[in-house]
Amino acid sequence: MSSTFGQLFRVHTFGESHGGGVGAVIDGCPPRIPLTADDIQVDLDRRRPGQSEIVTPRDEKDQAEILSGTFEGETIGTPIAVLVRNKDARSEAYSEMAEKYRPSHADYTYDAKYGIRNWQGGGRASARETIGRVAAAAIAKKVLAAQFAPDLEIIAWVKSIRDLEAKVDPDAVTFDQVEGNIVRTGDPDAVAPMVELIKEMRADGNSVGGVVECVVRGVPAGLGAPVFDKLEAELAKGMLSLPATKGFEIGSGFGGTLLTGREHNDPFFMEGDRVRTRTNRSGGIQGGISNGENIVFRVAFKPTATIMTSQETVSTEGEDTELKGRGRHDPCVLPRAVPMVEAMAALILCDHALRQRAQCGEMNWAIED
Amino acid sequence: MSSTFGQLFRVHTFGESHGGGVGAVIDGCPPRIPLTADDIQVDLDRRRPGQSEIVTPRDEKDQAEILSGTFEGETIGTPIAVLVRNKDARSEAYSEMAEKYRPSHADYTYDAKYGIRNWQGGGRASARETIGRVAAAAIAKKVLAAQFAPDLEIIAWVKSIRDLEAKVDPDAVTFDQVEGNIVRTGDPDAVAPMVELIKEMRADGNSVGGVVECVVRGVPAGLGAPVFDKLEAELAKGMLSLPATKGFEIGSGFGGTLLTGREHNDPFFMEGDRVRTRTNRSGGIQGGISNGENIVFRVAFKPTATIMTSQETVSTEGEDTELKGRGRHDPCVLPRAVPMVEAMAALILCDHALRQRAQCGEMNWAIED
Amino acid sequence: MSSTFGQLFRVHTFGESHGGGVGAVIDGCPPRIPLTADDIQVDLDRRRPGQSEIVTPRDEKDQAEILSGTFEGETIGTPIAVLVRNKDARSEAYSEMAEKYRPSHADYTYDAKYGIRNWQGGGRASARETIGRVAAAAIAKKVLAAQFAPDLEIIAWVKSIRDLEAKVDPDAVTFDQVEGNIVRTGDPDAVAPMVELIKEMRADGNSVGGVVECVVRGVPAGLGAPVFDKLEAELAKGMLSLPATKGFEIGSGFGGTLLTGREHNDPFFMEGDRVRTRTNRSGGIQGGISNGENIVFRVAFKPTATIMTSQETVSTEGEDTELKGRGRHDPCVLPRAVPMVEAMAALILCDHALRQRAQCGEMNWAIED
Amino acid sequence: MSSTFGQLFRVHTFGESHGGGVGAVIDGCPPRIPLTADDIQVDLDRRRPGQSEIVTPRDEKDQAEILSGTFEGETIGTPIAVLVRNKDARSEAYSEMAEKYRPSHADYTYDAKYGIRNWQGGGRASARETIGRVAAAAIAKKVLAAQFAPDLEIIAWVKSIRDLEAKVDPDAVTFDQVEGNIVRTGDPDAVAPMVELIKEMRADGNSVGGVVECVVRGVPAGLGAPVFDKLEAELAKGMLSLPATKGFEIGSGFGGTLLTGREHNDPFFMEGDRVRTRTNRSGGIQGGISNGENIVFRVAFKPTATIMTSQETVSTEGEDTELKGRGRHDPCVLPRAVPMVEAMAALILCDHALRQRAQCGEMNWAIED
Repeated sequence: MSSTFGQLFRVHTFGESHGGGVGAVIDGCPPRIPLTADDIQVDLDRRRPGQSEIVTPRDEKDQAEILSGTFEGETIGTPIAVLVRNKDARSEAYSEMAEKYRPSHADYTYDAKYGIRNWQGGGRASARETIGRVAAAAIAKKVLAAQFAPDLEIIAWVKSIRDLEAKVDPDAVTFDQVEGNIVRTGDPDAVAPMVELIKEMRADGNSVGGVVECVVRGVPAGLGAPVFDKLEAELAKGMLSLPATKGFEIGSGFGGTLLTGREHNDPFFMEGDRVRTRTNRSGGIQGGISNGENIVFRVAFKPTATIMTSQETVSTEGEDTELKGRGRHDPCVLPRAVPMVEAMAALILCDHALRQRAQCGEMNWAIED
Repeated sequence: MSSTFGQLFRVHTFGESHGGGVGAVIDGCPPRIPLTADDIQVDLDRRRPGQSEIVTPRDEKDQAEILSGTFEGETIGTPIAVLVRNKDARSEAYSEMAEKYRPSHADYTYDAKYGIRNWQGGGRASARETIGRVAAAAIAKKVLAAQFAPDLEIIAWVKSIRDLEAKVDPDAVTFDQVEGNIVRTGDPDAVAPMVELIKEMRADGNSVGGVVECVVRGVPAGLGAPVFDKLEAELAKGMLSLPATKGFEIGSGFGGTLLTGREHNDPFFMEGDRVRTRTNRSGGIQGGISNGENIVFRVAFKPTATIMTSQETVSTEGEDTELKGRGRHDPCVLPRAVPMVEAMAALILCDHALRQRAQCGEMNWAIED
Repeated sequence: MSSTFGQLFRVHTFGESHGGGVGAVIDGCPPRIPLTADDIQVDLDRRRPGQSEIVTPRDEKDQAEILSGTFEGETIGTPIAVLVRNKDARSEAYSEMAEKYRPSHADYTYDAKYGIRNWQGGGRASARETIGRVAAAAIAKKVLAAQFAPDLEIIAWVKSIRDLEAKVDPDAVTFDQVEGNIVRTGDPDAVAPMVELIKEMRADGNSVGGVVECVVRGVPAGLGAPVFDKLEAELAKGMLSLPATKGFEIGSGFGGTLLTGREHNDPFFMEGDRVRTRTNRSGGIQGGISNGENIVFRVAFKPTATIMTSQETVSTEGEDTELKGRGRHDPCVLPRAVPMVEAMAALILCDHALRQRAQCGEMNWAIED
Repeated sequence: MSSTFGQLFRVHTFGESHGGGVGAVIDGCPPRIPLTADDIQVDLDRRRPGQSEIVTPRDEKDQAEILSGTFEGETIGTPIAVLVRNKDARSEAYSEMAEKYRPSHADYTYDAKYGIRNWQGGGRASARETIGRVAAAAIAKKVLAAQFAPDLEIIAWVKSIRDLEAKVDPDAVTFDQVEGNIVRTGDPDAVAPMVELIKEMRADGNSVGGVVECVVRGVPAGLGAPVFDKLEAELAKGMLSLPATKGFEIGSGFGGTLLTGREHNDPFFMEGDRVRTRTNRSGGIQGGISNGENIVFRVAFKPTATIMTSQETVSTEGEDTELKGRGRHDPCVLPRAVPMVEAMAALILCDHALRQRAQCGEMNWAIED
């Protein structure tokens, strides 16, 4: 049951990096949403390996097939099964992994939990698992646009790589600005240094991490829930469920702890008929519910665990040994993490949109119009 | 359904700050766990108002009554309902709140979502709601101790208040060290400056935030789950569901993005029969599953939103106005947040312990013994 | 988690027959529904003991208190906690039950499952647990009337007691006809014989069962779901979760197996703009989804297990022994079961109404208008 | 979300009768259970079309592929995705169904709910959907045998077809007796008349229904749950979620309402160390929890809705019209329903076995040994 996300727009992912394939079953999707495999492919192409010179050169096309839940190009309200076959498998590259645990990977912990693991690649812990999420999110975005918030924008970008920080204005950055460079940052001046750093790390057999920032614009006030399913709590969970993440903060985040209440509070004011706040240290959410301002949050990704250097580790037999990374890997996951962050945000917003409609009817979405 | 937490050790909280009372129904608790109201009261007393000179002087005894689910001092496997009556209500202190939205509170967003709110105090968004969580966690800790990990320790402390940082070693800090001072920090040298800062803020009608750090010691390897319910994802959700939180990080956290993979990876080695890591940048969790090292994470709490200064805001009629905080409030939530952080951690660990037993049987808990 | 019912209109019941009390927490209720304790009391009074000369003479007022989730007479969207204190407890009447298992009760099975049980009365297995359901259903009915189907009618009645069968037309029977007699049957001619049979059974220390039939009128087409949560499947579960039930059938039921397809099929025809069926062997549901015809189903209740005769049984020590029923009991649960059957139907319909609004929007409810 | 079954052994089915395929994702399965596609195929072959002269002659091999969740012939604790491609599609046979609603099918109700439907075959309402259930149940049975109850037997058989009733002793009937004849009844004398009746019905373009009875032997006492998830309630839901079902009864069922309490109660006695009951009117379950006796229940299946006769119906345009069944159909679903009934029982027992282990540990399963 740990592979299910969402209460109403419910995603069940499946699949290991090696084996028959990966994918998702999406249940609870509204009917009569136009949907073809091409709609899904667009986002899968943004997360796939081999897309640029700074990501892993594995060449997987990740072609999506819709097995069920649509008819003549529209959703029909039944579960939508999406399958992406596994293709470019070089399992011999992983044979050493059968006997040695890779440091800072999930090999050991899977064995400790299950007493068995698929040691070909990362198995279920592989970032390949996120294919199912990205596919489901492509559908979620269509639902949001068709039925709830036509002007909704979910845009993520690389905010920093190691100590290189991009200057990006969450209120103004555009999707095209981000997609226009292979790093997926929103700051043109940051592209070259970031590319250079990533290449340098790869040349050295090393790796590097960073921070992805994300803005959601066009969310009306009233979305979310009190107590456990606060919108920021759901986002925190969604983001920390992505591989390689170590932290989440919203609005003022950790930096906000350096301010006093007088400095930190967001004063309300009227802008025409609309309630606005002067500042946005809340990050667009107050008490778990959106206030109509932009939702802004950041996610920390650690440096890729696979490095091309010999490292101290232990064998499955419980003996000290060494292991050197092999195969083709991302020296920096950030560029490919951008669509994953957007995907989790889209799934959460779509789920809460349906929850809102269930409990409160359609009304509130119109308030801000 | 936003008031339910957990899949197997399932907590349903209820209650507003004003009204009949607050509490929780805990379903799925194992039978034959010794339990009386006193067991719950201990932790409620750690979170209650009026406990020291640096928290709100509201004097609420928060006396817990167990309505069901126990018999002759033991749990019987059926839902445990816990009720704490509301007592010290001065609703007249809140009458202005009926017509004006408090900045950086949830007043406006509740109205936007529901079209109605209990404006007496924080209603459902009040920190008083956490009583149900703390009561449930007291039970969770008893289950963990009785059936899973007798030596499990969950200890949280105030790591920083504004720019005052405590020096605390997560591997060594004790519960008594933390509970021995009213700030609940683990660093004796930090107590006086922190108390002084909080009193200064209160005298000024201002407020301040900070960071709570938490360690879980004695968790065997193998607890948690892949993909969406990763242990760190559950912790992130649990923590961000607490009032006034703005961020969560585990292990190396945001700071870990400044390291390269070579610096960041945690090498494995054998310590007798036990798999250990040389460093613990993973924070005790790899791929969503515990690796047997200490689980260490941090939570950012913003400065209390209620300040005794006139602030710009809007009325429920949509007009610009001003509002000045009244009533008795915490100038700093951190000391009372410590048991809340521990509570969420306990609920998550207990839930995953039951999930582990369901899917994998009892075996793995014994591995590290 | 076995005490939760519903996916969106979610009811969590708690409480044993002896102890602090019984009740329910209802989460997911739409806001701004007028609601007071009196609304709940009406239905509680229909299920309470002591209401007539043919039910148990235990005199429990079962007074409901709303602890949370309402403000100034309206729901506010947060969990509604309802508590009914236990009062008329004569636990000494049960002392023998501590040591002997009552035949055809749940004493032995609770012990087998949990290794412990509250032997004072039926504990969690007592029909007293249904108080929480009936209270929740009173709210569900208000939601349905206010937001979905103002003309919806859910009417149950006693169809048979042992071999005494009432003649009742599901399309025509009224609530007042049923409530107008203490047996709660819809056939005036059946009242006297049924009362006589029940009294005769009681005089003999014996008991008797029967069948409750229920009709739901005014449900538009399109409510329900495919596959596992078919409307008839949900009704079957809801009804079989009531104490003392042994069977469920919808529409033609078991009798329908004696017909051929040609006899059994319900031909469609147009009645103005509305799609109707000539017959209603489907019982108002096809493929799990309502077709706009009346939903008609029947529930079998076994004779009350508590009888005033010495019976063969075993002790908790595993020895053969005898036990004679004591205390005050219903010789026939049917009259008090009627509001319970209605309650489960109301909970299911309200839950599916919210589910329908979530996935498909408001539209379909208007189709039949 | 209506396509998910189970709380811990969780099955998500997908697929329409026409389109890419049907299948299931099974989450929560214990690791290290031996499993290959062949294990699943055995049960799929029992439900597939074309298996004998009295079922539909559609020749679909229904070949299962395991896409994920196993490694080197064992489960690994991650979601098991099973896919069966759709093959023998003659969608032209269904073109008339695009414009006319088949009586007593789900065509109209799907349209009423979703405003769209896959009119090629039954779509999601097709019995083909049960492939996912049967595949999942094949795994559930392996889990039960490996970890909980090696001697557990789940055997269903055709109890009656129209008015032809088989004489079968639930305590003695064997799997081989049932599988040894194409009707899947346990009474050798009933086979010939039943085959004859089915052939006669098909020759006449008509159809017929009946009752499937099922016994579960070897369930220890203590399995199940109180209140809403009573074992009999779960069985009722599972059975009524199967296509074409109209009723469920357990133990004495509807017939039990004709007895008095004195006749109906099951006296306890000791058989060695084991608690037994003299009679089994409870059907092996008391208060929602197994008592160690055989679980016995019956399910009513209506006559197949598709008949080869012109029937009155309406068009999707809301006009009166006629429709004559075409294509290849089962004149009687009972023989193929037998493995479906067993499948739902297996899913429920496996789910509750995991739930029991989660809450109460392993102990109770051993009580009866």
